[in-house]
Amino acid sequence: MRPADWLQLFGTALERGDIAAAADLFEPGGYWRDLVAFTWNIKTCEGRGEVKAMLAATLAAVRPRNFVPKSDEWFSFETAAGRGVGHLRLRGRHCRTLLTTLQELKGFEETRDPGNGRPSEATQPYVVIVGGGQGGMALAARLKRLGVPALVVEKHARAGDSWRKRYASLCLHDPVWYDHMPYLPFPDHWPVFSPKDRMGDWLEMYAKVMELDYWTSTPCVSASFDREKELWEVKVMRNGEPVTLRPRHLVLATGMSGFPSIPRIPGADGFEGRIVHSSAHDGGAAWKDKQCVVVGSSTSAHDICEDLHRQGAAQVTMIQRAPTIVVRSGTLMDLAWGPLYSEQAVARGITTATADLTVASIPFRLLPEFQIPVYAAIRDRDADLYAGLDKAGFLYDFGADGSGIHSLYLRRGAGYYIETGASQMIIEGRIKLRSRVSVERLNRKSATLSDGTELPADLVVCATGYGSMNQWAAELISQEVADRVGKVWGLGSDTKQDPGPWVGELRNMWKPTQQPNLWFHGGNLMQSRHYSLYLALQLKARMEGIPARAYHVEPVHHLS
Amino acid sequence: MRPADWLQLFGTALERGDIAAAADLFEPGGYWRDLVAFTWNIKTCEGRGEVKAMLAATLAAVRPRNFVPKSDEWFSFETAAGRGVGHLRLRGRHCRTLLTTLQELKGFEETRDPGNGRPSEATQPYVVIVGGGQGGMALAARLKRLGVPALVVEKHARAGDSWRKRYASLCLHDPVWYDHMPYLPFPDHWPVFSPKDRMGDWLEMYAKVMELDYWTSTPCVSASFDREKELWEVKVMRNGEPVTLRPRHLVLATGMSGFPSIPRIPGADGFEGRIVHSSAHDGGAAWKDKQCVVVGSSTSAHDICEDLHRQGAAQVTMIQRAPTIVVRSGTLMDLAWGPLYSEQAVARGITTATADLTVASIPFRLLPEFQIPVYAAIRDRDADLYAGLDKAGFLYDFGADGSGIHSLYLRRGAGYYIETGASQMIIEGRIKLRSRVSVERLNRKSATLSDGTELPADLVVCATGYGSMNQWAAELISQEVADRVGKVWGLGSDTKQDPGPWVGELRNMWKPTQQPNLWFHGGNLMQSRHYSLYLALQLKARMEGIPARAYHVEPVHHLS
Repeated sequence: MRPADWLQLFGTALERGDIAAAADLFEPGGYWRDLVAFTWNIKTCEGRGEVKAMLAATLAAVRPRNFVPKSDEWFSFETAAGRGVGHLRLRGRHCRTLLTTLQELKGFEETRDPGNGRPSEATQPYVVIVGGGQGGMALAARLKRLGVPALVVEKHARAGDSWRKRYASLCLHDPVWYDHMPYLPFPDHWPVFSPKDRMGDWLEMYAKVMELDYWTSTPCVSASFDREKELWEVKVMRNGEPVTLRPRHLVLATGMSGFPSIPRIPGADGFEGRIVHSSAHDGGAAWKDKQCVVVGSSTSAHDICEDLHRQGAAQVTMIQRAPTIVVRSGTLMDLAWGPLYSEQAVARGITTATADLTVASIPFRLLPEFQIPVYAAIRDRDADLYAGLDKAGFLYDFGADGSGIHSLYLRRGAGYYIETGASQMIIEGRIKLRSRVSVERLNRKSATLSDGTELPADLVVCATGYGSMNQWAAELISQEVADRVGKVWGLGSDTKQDPGPWVGELRNMWKPTQQPNLWFHGGNLMQSRHYSLYLALQLKARMEGIPARAYHVEPVHHLS
Repeated sequence: MRPADWLQLFGTALERGDIAAAADLFEPGGYWRDLVAFTWNIKTCEGRGEVKAMLAATLAAVRPRNFVPKSDEWFSFETAAGRGVGHLRLRGRHCRTLLTTLQELKGFEETRDPGNGRPSEATQPYVVIVGGGQGGMALAARLKRLGVPALVVEKHARAGDSWRKRYASLCLHDPVWYDHMPYLPFPDHWPVFSPKDRMGDWLEMYAKVMELDYWTSTPCVSASFDREKELWEVKVMRNGEPVTLRPRHLVLATGMSGFPSIPRIPGADGFEGRIVHSSAHDGGAAWKDKQCVVVGSSTSAHDICEDLHRQGAAQVTMIQRAPTIVVRSGTLMDLAWGPLYSEQAVARGITTATADLTVASIPFRLLPEFQIPVYAAIRDRDADLYAGLDKAGFLYDFGADGSGIHSLYLRRGAGYYIETGASQMIIEGRIKLRSRVSVERLNRKSATLSDGTELPADLVVCATGYGSMNQWAAELISQEVADRVGKVWGLGSDTKQDPGPWVGELRNMWKPTQQPNLWFHGGNLMQSRHYSLYLALQLKARMEGIPARAYHVEPVHHLS
């Protein structure tokens, strides 16, 4: 069956309200992923039964129509409230995967800035966004284009500091085509991998030219929701002065790397050296000729070990507690990014929007199937790297099911390293490695490992990752609210740190949570860019009084 | 004849060195405009004779080849040194207009930034650019992409101040699609006409993210050329400290609006009010309830009159000495810009580069022919405006030959107003008008006009324009060098302030001058963007030792 024909059948079934017929156009286990258009949520229906249930709840109000093919895969459509874009994968006569996304609201489309410079009225913002990194900024930019008054509160003194204040050698590991901010892409000559300060400067500029309402030096202190008024009371310290904001909605865009996980190591109090989480580690210059121990084996750990070694540390030892996925940067570029986010992709006419929607069109349940062959090829292409890591005793794998970095990122948000030099140093023995151990105790000038051995240590860096973003809700709002919302991120894949049941979408991200008017925004640069659109549309709909009742807000299965 | 066939004949004639045959492919009065590729200059050959002379001097060294049509109008080609793009207008079997442009130098193409953050060596810059407005910045950005060390010295404290420090109501009058900077276009939602501060902020950001070597608070004090060493000695004051620079090349990018023309009015010393050039006028708030006289009738005069009136001046009188071209902004957008620089043009696939090259493909001698019908249509469409101006006594025309604003701009750089409200105020009598008069004398509290009448005056603003850019050469270098270079701008059209003989290109702009290693860059935003490429390529060629002897550097006919 041709895609145009399937769309024709699908559209007419929906228009006559024939839910059963519409569902039967899917494979029995077919997928329909909807970003806002039908469900006012971010939701994957898996199988005909879930498709039927969703349509039963939403079809009458959504009134979808006008399914127009644009190519064999892409189509446009309309609903009562908006216009959208979709993607279709057919297998024979049935749909294997369908993606529907809302792109704009009728009557509330993004507008060109009139440029008359009138300052916005001094009213309360409709949305307060806590966190002014790339996620908070991307969302604020979308909201501004939609005419939703939004205020970003950023604790640092300058926009971009969330990048500048990281360790000196931090560099973007995702290539530039993956990293564009909305509306203002990097120029063509931008480095493929931007150093942190350059990213920080770009973000600082972005906030300014996009005219975001953005308060620096403004940590958020607390927030509480008044259910009757449906307003948040958000207390911030603006340049040291307390200010109370009363937005309708609160978005936590505090970042995947916002809330450090710092292990409590016995003896830390008596340790005479410096012990610090990777997020507070300044960089290697001070540690020349010193004994350095880095706990962890993912990105931060590798980058920090490399930096310490280059700066002349006497010895740098990585303490690897569990396996890490390692992939060479160039290989990942060629085999993983290449088809969608690369110079070649741009040359083939793949726009950022197309690439983002293509990624979005792959249901999370199916992603491993798409990725496992890619990682088999990666393993093969870089056999020398993996042989070297084996010899050095470094523990690596390609994910619980071989589905690689992106899957792991969705499940856990961590646990991988994109090799840009540190792996080679490990192989060459320039970075020392102790694997399958952890730090059991700190002594005055050394660390005792779980195998009983002792390492001299002037510096211990805990590159031990970050906690669930709902810890921010606990910190700023209340434990009660944090528990009401539950764990943020992960898919319920029943792999390490991502316990089941399967929920099919990233928990609590970019969509309604169990706490009314509380939202989470973030992810990597691609997700921050792409999903900022859908979150902005949901907020705009509420501001304009467009009926936007979310279908099936996921219940909470885990608290963290 | 099809364009592809003409190109075939042309290419083969050139390849076998048959200059006569190549020239015969042109109409007897046909035009060939070359931007660097053949002439290492910016040069229009008019007629077969000039074509032959140019080829006789350049063909052997240029070795053009590989003329490949891309469409009916556009083609690519190569020379010994580079790759280019060209445009062809055929009439029957002959070429009416040919454009050839160098786009890149073989072996010295623009590169992607490696992003490794290595600071440039602390050497002398190869090029010093005096003036850090949009012109200086555009050139600096191009040079950076080509690996030519260049330093911009800007007298103001912040990049963008050349915009910020203008009168408050200043707004861009050219639409956004015309105004993009190289490499980093404005986002899609940017206002069609940016207010001055927004433009200033964009430029400040531009200098930063494009990583230009840019010194603020650094006025240039003097410069002199050492012919033997072929080096300039450029003295600047950097944050109050004297610094001497020794570049190979000096570019004056001081702007069309850089050197005010301030008339000496008898009695100015005894005048008790404020008399100021428009460039130093702060804005209307201080002049509420005051008597204001504005001398001049072009853009600045209209903007300032409007602003003074809105701010509550008791009376605002415009003193119009000579006719001004007036066109409504929307009409200009529709009828003049629309085909090339508009939302519609973008939607039709006209890129900025295509638009720029299309404008460049029209020889200056032919431009009036293209423009006169446009202005006839404008006159007709806005008959009401012109009737109103007639009634108010405002003197307008459509250029000496009816060829409108862009022609006038090329000839004189001034003398027009794009109506965004002030003309209507004149028609309504809210701005008073005295035309065909000038200010003869200032008294203590009034101005006496050339018709003997007296106007009370607390403020006299001389919106009397700016002088030729070679005045900067006189100021910074010497009168001798300024005279050696001669008048900057204008075409030799034998119209007001643009005396003949016809030179066919803008005098001294973006190309070699009679002073070795001295260049001028600037123009409006479109010209600053487009011609920065050709100037940068000429400088790069010299830096790399590529033979780049300019064909026919125009002799000087006028000193100012």
